[in-house]
Amino acid sequence: MDENLDRKVDSIREIFESGDLPRLGGSLEGLRVPDAAEVLTALPAEIRVPLFKSMEQEMASEVLTFVDEGIARALLELLTVDEMASLIDPMASDDATDIINLLNADNAGAVLRRISREDYEHVSELLKFDEESAGGLMDRELVTVRAGKSISDVIAKLRSGLANIEQIQNIYVIDSQSVLLGTIPLINLLVTDPGKKVEEVMERDILTVTADTDQEEVAAIFSKYDLYSIPVVDENGRLAGRITVDDIIDVIEEEATEDISMMAGTGEEEFYERSPVKLSRARLPWLLTGLFGGIASAMMMNNFQESLESVLTLAFFVPVITAMGGNVGIQSSAIVVRELALGGLSVSQTGGKLLRELKVSIINGIVIGTVLLLIVTIWQKDFRLGILLGICIFIIICWATIMGAFIPLMLKKAKIDPALATGPFITTFNDILGIAIYLGIATVFLEWLGKG
Amino acid sequence: MDENLDRKVDSIREIFESGDLPRLGGSLEGLRVPDAAEVLTALPAEIRVPLFKSMEQEMASEVLTFVDEGIARALLELLTVDEMASLIDPMASDDATDIINLLNADNAGAVLRRISREDYEHVSELLKFDEESAGGLMDRELVTVRAGKSISDVIAKLRSGLANIEQIQNIYVIDSQSVLLGTIPLINLLVTDPGKKVEEVMERDILTVTADTDQEEVAAIFSKYDLYSIPVVDENGRLAGRITVDDIIDVIEEEATEDISMMAGTGEEEFYERSPVKLSRARLPWLLTGLFGGIASAMMMNNFQESLESVLTLAFFVPVITAMGGNVGIQSSAIVVRELALGGLSVSQTGGKLLRELKVSIINGIVIGTVLLLIVTIWQKDFRLGILLGICIFIIICWATIMGAFIPLMLKKAKIDPALATGPFITTFNDILGIAIYLGIATVFLEWLGKG
Repeated sequence: MDENLDRKVDSIREIFESGDLPRLGGSLEGLRVPDAAEVLTALPAEIRVPLFKSMEQEMASEVLTFVDEGIARALLELLTVDEMASLIDPMASDDATDIINLLNADNAGAVLRRISREDYEHVSELLKFDEESAGGLMDRELVTVRAGKSISDVIAKLRSGLANIEQIQNIYVIDSQSVLLGTIPLINLLVTDPGKKVEEVMERDILTVTADTDQEEVAAIFSKYDLYSIPVVDENGRLAGRITVDDIIDVIEEEATEDISMMAGTGEEEFYERSPVKLSRARLPWLLTGLFGGIASAMMMNNFQESLESVLTLAFFVPVITAMGGNVGIQSSAIVVRELALGGLSVSQTGGKLLRELKVSIINGIVIGTVLLLIVTIWQKDFRLGILLGICIFIIICWATIMGAFIPLMLKKAKIDPALATGPFITTFNDILGIAIYLGIATVFLEWLGKG
Repeated sequence: MDENLDRKVDSIREIFESGDLPRLGGSLEGLRVPDAAEVLTALPAEIRVPLFKSMEQEMASEVLTFVDEGIARALLELLTVDEMASLIDPMASDDATDIINLLNADNAGAVLRRISREDYEHVSELLKFDEESAGGLMDRELVTVRAGKSISDVIAKLRSGLANIEQIQNIYVIDSQSVLLGTIPLINLLVTDPGKKVEEVMERDILTVTADTDQEEVAAIFSKYDLYSIPVVDENGRLAGRITVDDIIDVIEEEATEDISMMAGTGEEEFYERSPVKLSRARLPWLLTGLFGGIASAMMMNNFQESLESVLTLAFFVPVITAMGGNVGIQSSAIVVRELALGGLSVSQTGGKLLRELKVSIINGIVIGTVLLLIVTIWQKDFRLGILLGICIFIIICWATIMGAFIPLMLKKAKIDPALATGPFITTFNDILGIAIYLGIATVFLEWLGKG
């Protein structure tokens, strides 16, 4: 948060503490909406609520679309249904839909009955879609024009109805059945002879998505083709809405955050959360996974008690085994997950990908195995122990690398989020297996080690 | 990659194998540029090179801006300086700059002397900036208009000079010193009386960045304010260029990939790489870090040889200690790093953040400590060992959580990439320290454990 906003937060706090509540109302004046939302978020709830209630309706409506879901929900809960409706009415259809999605069914129904008829139609259409699909991202504030019209007709339409369409990139040309025929970038309206028909000017080779397209796929299309917006069509090619790039940026950040959360084992939606109890509740399941994995490792070591009693030194290298198995597993799984997320890897390339990881793991296994062999031989003055550890780490590196790549690919094939295969799961899995491989091999060769 | 492109790759491979090289030239016709770039990337180098050389110049120029740096560099190396110049000349200034940055100094200089004078001025200006700054992202294809002009003057200018400006969002209004006064969104040109002066129509409250602004900060501004483009100005407010949202999407994906690579310890720019040797070279330094950390852990255990000999069971729980210390460290460091990356956390909030993590770690420590106490007591039928492990894990969880949050915040303060504190470094650090704390405490209480 920048310093000016920090200072604004402090000054609002002072106004509140001085008890001069009427002054609260104007305290966010002159700020841009996203800044006002940030200040509101940074304030404690006991100041946030009276401040929000004292805001002008237009500002309050806009700010509501910029704060986090949790805060928006808490603020909405304090309003009457009429107040909710008057804040939601001026919003763009996608924002209105997102906000109505935060309400309980009763309130949502009541608000829908109170907003304007056109908004009602737009929003109730959008409410049907999964929030993580193209339908959940799109808005219905489109400028359309029928084929047969002229450029000057389009300009006249824009002049009459600009009202609440803020980000216009393209004009959509449709036929009488609303089937999308083409698009006209705004700039072309300015530089083309106004008498021309829209079909003469429009671009026909257009990318579209359908409402059920997953948001990650939509984001990949924006990223690949450098788009600013994309039309959404139904199965018959009829125009249903459009998605703008600002919402795609949110999707990309969200998906990256989700992948990072999975890797770190923190549960979703933890960022910006303040309550230690909630944070702890999000993280604990993953820690318990790790704990039970650790206990399983301990039991595994218990099975090899005799070997460990005769060669205690074997125990010293358990942290090496778990660290290496964990590290290589995370490396290959993270790369596969990220490649899948960015759309650069399709499931059909599975075989090639696994082969590549096998080759990488063989090189890494040889290098790390040799280094470990040398260190152990010199440190412990025991060439046989060095050989044993070198071979074990080689096997574990190959195995853990392949598993790290294989598991997310299988999850993707089964249509489960491949990011599950990163983080605590893969580490725990590799820990247990690594210890079993290591102590198993060591036990077989205990006599050769000269200590059986 | 989608199936159509997969099939295209196969058919080009067949053409190549049949030896019908003249047919290669037309094989990418009808594809969109990003698709052509994807097909080119998917082909092996021995087909990619003749295919690229047989492409029409316009297509080749565009494709070059869409392929990965490594591939672009390899293709450029096969061209003469004249060929390079004719591919670079038609590019937008930011793309041209990126490509010239791939060349060695001799070739770059030679190409600069061969491109048009205007391009030369633009590009040599842009070459000065750090690639990861606003200056490195911006292009100089701006539509500007002097204050005092009318809307119809602007439209006339657009009609005359549309040429190679593809994504126009705004017209920039400047004074005689090139100082940016305001912007006019394209739509306003269409709906405003053409006789009006630009100052009457322009928006004066505009966000700008300077050329030295870090790209991550620029991305945070786009994300926060839902921008499609932003003007770049110098310290005197003179307009220097503009950044468009398509480049920002690349930045956001790049930065997320970087953070994920850091967490996974894979080195940068590994995605899409195919050579096992290169992949291995990128991953090995991180693995060696982990290996030496593991050896340090082994030496740490060696120090406590006597304690381990008298109570071998202590060794069984080393994987529990390292797993938990690693997990909580990654959780808190990943969250802090991500919050810093998304701009939601400023260094001034360090104290509050650490306090919050301390609270979370106390809750997690109590829960995990209690569960471990119970499991150990029941499994090993040893209440004292249970107590010891419960207390040790509590201390280690608190310590590792705080370190996980503290280290990236310190790195950020020292202007080092905080993402360094995720992944192998933090895990290794916590492994060694966790074992030291655990075996240290156990040794002190060895007598109490009844086995000293």
